[in-house]
Amino acid sequence: MFSKTDVDQIVTIAKSAGEKLKQWSSEGFHVNSKNTRTDLVTDVDYMIQEYLIKEISQSFKNSAFLAEESGYEHIPKEQSYWVIDPIDGTVNFSRGIPENCISIAYVENREPVLGIIYAPFMNLFYFAQKGKGTFLNDEKVNPHWCNNFEDAMLSLGNKRGKTHLYFQALEEKVMRIRLFGTAALQIAYVSSGFLDAFISVGSHPWDVAAAYLLVKEAGGKVVELNGKDADIFYSNAIYCNPYIADELVNIVSKVDK
Amino acid sequence: MFSKTDVDQIVTIAKSAGEKLKQWSSEGFHVNSKNTRTDLVTDVDYMIQEYLIKEISQSFKNSAFLAEESGYEHIPKEQSYWVIDPIDGTVNFSRGIPENCISIAYVENREPVLGIIYAPFMNLFYFAQKGKGTFLNDEKVNPHWCNNFEDAMLSLGNKRGKTHLYFQALEEKVMRIRLFGTAALQIAYVSSGFLDAFISVGSHPWDVAAAYLLVKEAGGKVVELNGKDADIFYSNAIYCNPYIADELVNIVSKVDK
Repeated sequence: MFSKTDVDQIVTIAKSAGEKLKQWSSEGFHVNSKNTRTDLVTDVDYMIQEYLIKEISQSFKNSAFLAEESGYEHIPKEQSYWVIDPIDGTVNFSRGIPENCISIAYVENREPVLGIIYAPFMNLFYFAQKGKGTFLNDEKVNPHWCNNFEDAMLSLGNKRGKTHLYFQALEEKVMRIRLFGTAALQIAYVSSGFLDAFISVGSHPWDVAAAYLLVKEAGGKVVELNGKDADIFYSNAIYCNPYIADELVNIVSKVDK
Repeated sequence: MFSKTDVDQIVTIAKSAGEKLKQWSSEGFHVNSKNTRTDLVTDVDYMIQEYLIKEISQSFKNSAFLAEESGYEHIPKEQSYWVIDPIDGTVNFSRGIPENCISIAYVENREPVLGIIYAPFMNLFYFAQKGKGTFLNDEKVNPHWCNNFEDAMLSLGNKRGKTHLYFQALEEKVMRIRLFGTAALQIAYVSSGFLDAFISVGSHPWDVAAAYLLVKEAGGKVVELNGKDADIFYSNAIYCNPYIADELVNIVSKVDK
């Protein structure tokens, strides 16, 4: 359990990391490829991760970390650890697109109990604690999700060469489909009722750990393609308005078979 | 030609309309369908349009208007007129999604000479005057567009039932494809180098008039599917980084044939 002081500390750290993100972005940075030409990382990804690990380690003794960059990509042996994506939406960030965010979660026994998604260029600060609800900019979210599938606003992850199949299966059945280019922020949008669902295709725990808790605490569902509850380690989950989960699973489970 | 006082006046009007948009959004509104179930309009669209027409008419005598709502949808007989989209991205707006904007242009002899795109929920204020460049939040844009097609960041308009064809033709040839849900803002993103191109599918002059000028003044191209220069009345134009225009036209012109 986090005390009020603990919560204040991690919120302060997240907000100061957001300020660093804006500052370092304005000072210029290098962009490099990782595994493939289209898998990008910037200097700022590494700098934000280092900053977060240093600050969190100072405030919370014996912290362990699972994070996207620099050798932190393996699940720690500890029962509890922080899960960090320094920049979710790095490709967007690399081009100056405001849709990118910092994701910080604290996981106990494989389940997130605290989650923060901060999109500093958009002034969106999402926060959730297990059992205490989800907040956007200090206001409790009250998601006005649709009841009918044809009114649904969906969003998709990026699956190179396969995205058109998801569009084909869904675009005439729903209101609209969006692709904002950051899994974490799109799942956060589900938690605040901006979207009805995000369909994840090949996510890592650092992409989704914080956002998972936002959706669950807002009353949403996170399900596997067989309809069962998914955890943060399942890479193709649907983060969803509960009213349309069954119909969406039914369609998506048949895509790319 | 607009005097400095004229420019200050229209900028002030646009910014105050953005404040109204935020205020009226927070007070709640009704959403209705227009021609089809998925073509939405809100009370706030009408209210912003009415506010803009009233304020502009007071500041600029004998103004004529072409605008999305309420009987202003026909091209005025005057040689010069304002072109207004009170909310571009109404579907986004109706769900609370920050990606939506006010678009204001002044057109002389069918060509925009002043353009404003204001996304008040994202603090993005784009401004261009013919011959004087494009500015984002008072700084002249300096778009770092890609030189190679495989590094391109593209975005698409919404064409129900056809979007998957554009994805299929393009998704393995470029860096990423985005769908932010507002044509005007996505074209503005091209002008600031966030994106390399926006592919318009069925746009109206009010969607694109201001954004057209932003792209042209930033050094970008606006072309028809035959590669010729497009104007604001052509509904399927490509708003583009000049380095990739030919290759993009070559691919897109074959889609949906």
